[in-house]
Amino acid sequence: MGNYTLNDIAKMDRRFRANLINAVSGIKSANLIGTCNTDGQTNLAIFNSVLHIGSNPPLMSILVRPNSVERHTYENIKSTGYFTVNAVNKKLIERAHQTSGKYPNGVSEFIICQIKPTFSDIHPAPYVAESYIQIGLKIEEEHHIRSNQTILVVGRIVELNISKDVVTEDGHLDLSQLDIIGVNGLDTYGQASKWKKMPYVSSASIQ
Amino acid sequence: MGNYTLNDIAKMDRRFRANLINAVSGIKSANLIGTCNTDGQTNLAIFNSVLHIGSNPPLMSILVRPNSVERHTYENIKSTGYFTVNAVNKKLIERAHQTSGKYPNGVSEFIICQIKPTFSDIHPAPYVAESYIQIGLKIEEEHHIRSNQTILVVGRIVELNISKDVVTEDGHLDLSQLDIIGVNGLDTYGQASKWKKMPYVSSASIQ
Repeated sequence: MGNYTLNDIAKMDRRFRANLINAVSGIKSANLIGTCNTDGQTNLAIFNSVLHIGSNPPLMSILVRPNSVERHTYENIKSTGYFTVNAVNKKLIERAHQTSGKYPNGVSEFIICQIKPTFSDIHPAPYVAESYIQIGLKIEEEHHIRSNQTILVVGRIVELNISKDVVTEDGHLDLSQLDIIGVNGLDTYGQASKWKKMPYVSSASIQ
Repeated sequence: MGNYTLNDIAKMDRRFRANLINAVSGIKSANLIGTCNTDGQTNLAIFNSVLHIGSNPPLMSILVRPNSVERHTYENIKSTGYFTVNAVNKKLIERAHQTSGKYPNGVSEFIICQIKPTFSDIHPAPYVAESYIQIGLKIEEEHHIRSNQTILVVGRIVELNISKDVVTEDGHLDLSQLDIIGVNGLDTYGQASKWKKMPYVSSASIQ
């Protein structure tokens, strides 16, 4: 049991607080963000902050922390305009998590973490070849969160590659075939199963 | 298999596109957002757009679509300054999903969906009594996404209630005790299991 006020949270040990506050937002999507700089040097970083913004136009965002290893991702998006979002699956977890380390400048996480890139004609950012859901985005707008100096980068989907036959007739994904992974907190990965589709709730349902 | 360009996505049937683009962002956290208006009338709505913004200060956000049933949530946050985020667990799924329906003005989803509210002294917004993770927030800032007229509402955590003994010594949650639920797309709920904690990756790990 735990009941914490803002004051209690402020007094917490730094790492305890980071773990707890990250964890209470629940299960998040685990994605690898691929970018390159203007010289074509690739970069790959795991993010748990991908957010669906809307489907028409198709928009997604990531939240970047410019004072962390995510800085290269942000710099590359700013200089090239493009990034990719690649769903992490079961086989990729260990290598994907390794991208959260700090590596020397000029060393691509694709090489050091043994993750094969793949490229498209449509934009310069690299995809993760082994990911079943590869999304190519062009930056659309960005918002600076004043309270903690993070940046919400909103991109428009310019390409979507789904590498397994999992799209149903009405646009759902058959998740059982995707080994889709969720993450809780900063470092705890889980596999979701027992998916249950709920019916659309119309106003008629209360009559 | 599916390879779609921006142009292909633009031409999709509206509902197919909404399902597909919502689904490709992966597993999201399922939360009930509790608010009330200045007369104390309560409101409850299910959101799959809760995003962790940072832990110091403790910040979370929700993305609201002012042209949908989420409008009341936004109006209440604007007029009172407060909202709650309540994790959906296995027992709550059916009733939580029912809050996505359109109900007449003056009818609280707490009553129509048979979800019991509970209140704190710290702020006016109602919690979901059956939720194991109850988070009380005060609005901190908001950002208008120009590309599709959605609004990112950022709140500061002023109270956190965890109703089971699941917080580990280092601030992680023991998720197996929480029946925590994820959602893919708009309406497909799943239970995550087989959680695996990965070690912290320091720069030393490449040496």
